[in-house]
Order: sequence, then C-alpha cells, then structure tokens
Amino acid sequence: METFRVIPEERHNSLVVAAFRHRGYTIEESCAASRMAAMATRHGNRTHNAIKALHLDHLFGSGNGGCVPGAQIEKVSTRFAAVEVWDAHRKLGQATALEAIETAIALAEKYGSGTVCVDNAFHYLWGGGYVMEAAKRGYIAYTNCTAALTEVVPLGGRFPTLGTNPHSWGLPTTAALGYPVVVDWATSVVAMGRVQQLAREGGALPPNAAVDKNGGPTVDPAQAVALLPFGAHKGYGLSLINELYAAFIGGSTPTLRCRPPVAEEKQTPAFFFQVIHPESMSARRYAQGRTQAENVKRVLEDILGHGNAGCLLPGQIEAKAAARSDENGGLLFTDAEIAALGEIALEVGAPEWSPGDFKMAK
Amino acid sequence: METFRVIPEERHNSLVVAAFRHRGYTIEESCAASRMAAMATRHGNRTHNAIKALHLDHLFGSGNGGCVPGAQIEKVSTRFAAVEVWDAHRKLGQATALEAIETAIALAEKYGSGTVCVDNAFHYLWGGGYVMEAAKRGYIAYTNCTAALTEVVPLGGRFPTLGTNPHSWGLPTTAALGYPVVVDWATSVVAMGRVQQLAREGGALPPNAAVDKNGGPTVDPAQAVALLPFGAHKGYGLSLINELYAAFIGGSTPTLRCRPPVAEEKQTPAFFFQVIHPESMSARRYAQGRTQAENVKRVLEDILGHGNAGCLLPGQIEAKAAARSDENGGLLFTDAEIAALGEIALEVGAPEWSPGDFKMAK
Repeated sequence: METFRVIPEERHNSLVVAAFRHRGYTIEESCAASRMAAMATRHGNRTHNAIKALHLDHLFGSGNGGCVPGAQIEKVSTRFAAVEVWDAHRKLGQATALEAIETAIALAEKYGSGTVCVDNAFHYLWGGGYVMEAAKRGYIAYTNCTAALTEVVPLGGRFPTLGTNPHSWGLPTTAALGYPVVVDWATSVVAMGRVQQLAREGGALPPNAAVDKNGGPTVDPAQAVALLPFGAHKGYGLSLINELYAAFIGGSTPTLRCRPPVAEEKQTPAFFFQVIHPESMSARRYAQGRTQAENVKRVLEDILGHGNAGCLLPGQIEAKAAARSDENGGLLFTDAEIAALGEIALEVGAPEWSPGDFKMAK
Repeated sequence: METFRVIPEERHNSLVVAAFRHRGYTIEESCAASRMAAMATRHGNRTHNAIKALHLDHLFGSGNGGCVPGAQIEKVSTRFAAVEVWDAHRKLGQATALEAIETAIALAEKYGSGTVCVDNAFHYLWGGGYVMEAAKRGYIAYTNCTAALTEVVPLGGRFPTLGTNPHSWGLPTTAALGYPVVVDWATSVVAMGRVQQLAREGGALPPNAAVDKNGGPTVDPAQAVALLPFGAHKGYGLSLINELYAAFIGGSTPTLRCRPPVAEEKQTPAFFFQVIHPESMSARRYAQGRTQAENVKRVLEDILGHGNAGCLLPGQIEAKAAARSDENGGLLFTDAEIAALGEIALEVGAPEWSPGDFKMAK
C-alpha cells in the first residue's frame, strides 16, 4: 500500500498559485488552478492534481500558445436567455470552467436549466470537479469537452480521430448519502497514460482497449499506438457526442486539435456545461409523502438493498478520500509527488520542499 | 438473409390505430402509437414495432392498469420557465413522449434549451425515435427513462435493482450527412429478449453480460436470470443516472416498478426530455468562415477520414433502412411478423391479413 504525507492545503495552494503566477497567469486564474488542484487531491484524484496541471500547461498551454494567461472571456450575444456561448480566447481552463459552472447555476436558478457553451477553450483538467462542486450545492450538473489530442480510433476504424472525450455528471445526493454521486469517465477503455505506465512496468492491456500501428487490436502496451472506445458502439457514440457538440459550438478538425499550428485553422477544444435545478424537475408527488431528498434516498436504498450492499456508488471513493484528507488535516501526496512539487518550488523560487517537513498520513 | 414484404404504411397505420382504439385508447393516442410504430419499422427497428407496442400494452399497460387510455396530462406549475414537469397519469407513452418532445422544442426555440420531466409515465418504447424526430427538424435532443422492470444488477451486486435504462441522443447532422446521428442504447450489455432468444435457439452470451441465480457471471443463457451493465462502472453509472433523474422527478422504489400493485407505492416509470437549439450553442466563429452545418460536416469528414471510411455512424443503419423502405414504397415486415399482425387484425375485427397480399421487398 502506498504511503502518503500530509501537505497543509495553504502550503499547497501558495505553491500552485506561485507556479501559475510565474508562468504569467493572473492572480484570479492562478487561484482557480490551485483551487481545482487542491479539490482533485483532496478527493484522491492523482491524475489531475497540480503536477499534472502544470505539466499540461507546459505541453499545450502557456508553454506553447494553447493557453493565454490573462485572456478575457467574451460572451457572444444570442437571442436565447437560458444558454450562453462564450469565446474563452484560450483562457486557463480551470478559471473558465469555474466561471461557466457558476453561470450555469445562476441560469438554472432563473430558468430551471442553464447551459454554457465555450469555444476556443483550453483543457479544464477534471470535469468531475466542476459537476461535483455544483452537486454539492444542490444542483444536477453535466459537462463534456473535447480532449486535447485525438488518441481514440472510431469503432471499425484504423486511425485515431477522436479524443478520449470525457462525460461528467454530478447529482445532488448529499442529503441521501452524505456525498454527491459523480459519474465521471473518459470514453476510451483506458487512458494513454495507463498504456505508457504498463509499457514501463510490464503488464498486458485489457482486450479491446488499444490498437497497434496497423489498426489491429493489441494487448501489448509496447505495440499500442492508439486507444479504443469502451463498450464498442456505445462508447464510440458517447465520444462522437463530444466532437459534435464541439462542432456545433465552434471546434474544428479534430485531428488538428492541440497539434502544431496550421494556418487558417482552429485547434482549440470546446466545453459544454449544463446545470438543472432539481426543484424544476419535481412533480412534488412522491410516494408515502416523501420529500424529494427522501425519495432519492429511498431509491438508492432499494438499488443497494437486496444483497447489493457491497456495490460502490460513483463518487463514493472520492468522498472517502476527502474524508481521509480532512481527518489528516491536509492534502495527501506520496514522496514522489512531493519531490515533483519540490522541483516546481525550485523553478518558481518558492521555499524549499522536503518530504521530511510533512507528517505521515493516517 | 431474411426476406421482407412491403406493407403500405396506410394499411399498417389503420390496423395499429384500430388495435389501440379496440383497447380503449383515444384516436389521438392511437395515432401516436401508429406513428411511432411506423417510424420504428421504417427505420429497421424490429424490437419496438407495432407488435411489440401492443404486446407491452397487454403485459404492463391497459392490459393490467399500468397505462390508462384517455388519461390527461397534467402540467405541474413551477417557477421555472425553461423546464416543465408533467404528471402523465399513466397516459400512453408514445402520445406523452411526442407531446413532450414538441414542448421541449418550443421551449428551446424560446430559451435555447427546453426540458420536460414526466412523472407517472408509461413505457414510451423507442427513445431513439423521439430524438430522431427532433434532430431531423434541426435540434439536439436527449431523452432517458426508467425501463419497466429492474433486470440489471449494479456493478459488484447480486440482485437486479436497475432497469435497462436507455439513453438516446439525436444530433441534427442531416445537412452534413443526409441523416441525423442518433446514439441510442440500453445500459445493459444485451436485452433480456436476446437472452431468451439465445436460450431458445442455442448459443452463448457475451462475457459479463448476465448473472445466474447466485449472482455469478454466466455465458449460459439458460442459467441467466439477470443482466449486467455494459462497460463495468461506466454503464452502471449511466444506468444510475436514469434512476436518479426519475427519483428527482417522482419515481419510486425501482424494484416495485411495473410489478404487481403495492399499496401506498408509486410503480410508474419517469421520462426526461431535453432539446437544445443548435443556434443557441454557436459562437459563430468557425474556421475558414464555415457555417455551422459546414463545420459539423468538416468534423465528421475528419473523423471518418484517415482510413476510417469503413466506420458506421450511429443512425446510419436506421437511415439506410428508411431509404430501403421508401424505395419499396412501404414498411418491411417478415412473414412471421405479418402473421402476428394478422392475429391482431383478427382480434380487432379488421380486414384479414395474408402474406400473399403483399409484394416482396427489394
């Protein structure tokens, strides 16, 4: 079992803010980045933490023009009151997404449902985080986006022309369960990071997860050059939805996305956010005179009853990780992660980090 | 290859209307049922045709109180303009769903997105049909519902407490492709009907599609008593979404749904519909000065380029079937299906049906 040390959230946040400031981001953008990174780590998400956020920014963001520090979001005017369309002008994804989910919540408060579509976006990292935030505050929320690179082969094809295109739903089940149900995953069987990890460490891929250079299925991570959608035509269809939403919003040729610049082309991802006010959905005639929250609880009890008590709900692992973080009074990182954070500190001239400074997590 | 005969749509519709009228449905309800049945058959959907609609009505509908002919939809008043909530009072699902999608379209025309939630519903048969209808008219549409019976075991569980809970998305790609992309499937690996067919005809189930009476996975259709979600936690999460949307709307204890009456309990499915106006999503800054439709076309060309020309798009098989129906000038049915329609004709005193009356389809 991996061991963790406890980083006080303030220490984490001041480093992350400093690192984003160092790359030219505004204080507001840097705070959004640190807030989302802390939220990911607090919930046990180790693939979308501060280290990953800074790495992504280096690869695709301020490091090579995919993201523009200090960019201003432009609201495109339309005749529709409950849907907004923004041109993010490649503003930092976390700042854009946090503002989008707030706006979608405000629209849902007014109209029942609120939608925000974002053109010219930059990677928002963890879609689950934004919908979890909305769900914790009592709303149903959904987001999808086009993932940076096309790494996924359409069903029956040979060449990767789809992103890993995630979908994320958050449901306000805190009154029923103590935490929101958060359904959040990419539409590939595995992530490319997982393929690379298996190639390094040895081990086979699951069947129908990846293809080799000839477009044939392979379980050998060293031969894998592209990914396959999960659930055959079902995951393929779900991945297409993100590409088509993006195409309606303003996204362009998928295989050019986040690749080296091509004149006259758009190469940015797009975001779609939607929030529904649960009160707007309620027919207010629940069995046994239950409230909406009691009804949701009853339904979940039935699903997990009948010998199904061992089932996990989506969001449960994240809630358990958050409880462990809170018990320990900080964010949990491994020594390897702390070393990576230490390198970032060195880069931005922040106080030195050393694993020995931090207590072991329970 | 199966052979088909061509039934003129008018002949089909007058039989289906007569059959629903015979069971007490209003002319408007009967026409909705016949319209959706014709649409399913025209698009090659043989699992949600008129025969299935009447069979479902017999099992769960007017045949045993799950559906109430002539029921009036009641609109529940809320303070939200872009979301409506209806109590369908168990009105025929097809009539309710057609009205719901029209209302969602009207709301989307006004607000950009429109949502209709339906409590106390009865099975709407083919979710793909409603979103296809909206997509053909230029809208993005989505629906989910709670399936009649809980036949699916949650991931890690033993007992079926989830419906096959389908999701359906329709995307207005006709300008780009000649037909709408329709992503439409249940969240189980296979349908229970497929298990029963394999048990009759012999053959193995795919792995991880069903469980036996002890809750263990089985590929033997004769041992299978319940289904599993597709894509492990991903399909499980998608199935939970329908149960939770229904719980927020007004649905109750899933395992009681469409089962023998239990006092003080609600046992009806719920529907969720949403339509988005694509104009409301457009940032109007597509690469190369393209229109929205041209941009969607460019994205699809890229996805199906690069050696992927052999890939099918969701909705393509249905579009091809519709073209074949139109070429033949009617709806295509097998002799076995025509025999079943003949039995219905006999039951309702309609003119006799005989395969010989109908020409063979090309």
